[in-house]
Amino acid sequence: MKIAAEALIGETIRLAMESIRQGGGPFGALVVKDDVVISTGHNTVSIDNDPTAHAEVNAIRSAAKKLDTFDLSGCVIYTSCEPCPMCLGAIYWSRIKHIYFAAGREAAANAGFDDSFIYRQIDILPQHRSVPAWQVTSPDALLPFDTWKSEVGKINY
Amino acid sequence: MKIAAEALIGETIRLAMESIRQGGGPFGALVVKDDVVISTGHNTVSIDNDPTAHAEVNAIRSAAKKLDTFDLSGCVIYTSCEPCPMCLGAIYWSRIKHIYFAAGREAAANAGFDDSFIYRQIDILPQHRSVPAWQVTSPDALLPFDTWKSEVGKINY
Repeated sequence: MKIAAEALIGETIRLAMESIRQGGGPFGALVVKDDVVISTGHNTVSIDNDPTAHAEVNAIRSAAKKLDTFDLSGCVIYTSCEPCPMCLGAIYWSRIKHIYFAAGREAAANAGFDDSFIYRQIDILPQHRSVPAWQVTSPDALLPFDTWKSEVGKINY
Repeated sequence: MKIAAEALIGETIRLAMESIRQGGGPFGALVVKDDVVISTGHNTVSIDNDPTAHAEVNAIRSAAKKLDTFDLSGCVIYTSCEPCPMCLGAIYWSRIKHIYFAAGREAAANAGFDDSFIYRQIDILPQHRSVPAWQVTSPDALLPFDTWKSEVGKINY
């Protein structure tokens, strides 16, 4: 039976509320494939001392572990809040096909989270961002990619 | 003794080359604090079946574990390639202060990686991206944030 998007979004909000009770951040997410919930996740940044442990990243990592593949093609992610750039990137890399979310990035900003700020940083030239990125010249900079391109039997991801 | 940026970038390239030999992706990174290397990481997406296991994410998670905090203020990250949006987001959340990289995002694209594509996707309206994101209306959408804002003793991150 197909579960309605509203019911699954309600479940992500319940996960977010439970996360707060456990000392985590106010975010919940779940990954669904063929109308089956594969994994759930909540924000454990402060619980696990892991700045990458957002609800979506946790749900993706858990789904990939359960399905024993880094390729979540055909999966859908539901999340209590619009994914931040880190989580959006993780969703693209995982090949999830689409996203449903409840609150928008402005609501996250209003609660003290940097999602909206980081989105705006991305369009700034790397060296001018608040976390500047500088390219260092190296004669070997392209060596890993050149080696990769000629590698036989590599796993593309 | 201060280690030159060129030497640390050389080390990330060495890590990327070693990663290929181990069956991982062609990327390496390391986190430095007060001129001490805290952690290293390489891309283990296909080794660990974890689409989030990029070199930078692995190095950040490892540094946070070693320093026993999600807050890597004062740390610097060195990486063999310009961070993708996921890794850039992880860097912002970790409060790393700046970034040195070797190859640019175009070099990654040229080797078959989607970094540059994902950067371009971010500026597109969420519902029009190749991985569309749809907001689902819920009367409880703001409940987790409202609860979080009134939470006493929460750990801000």
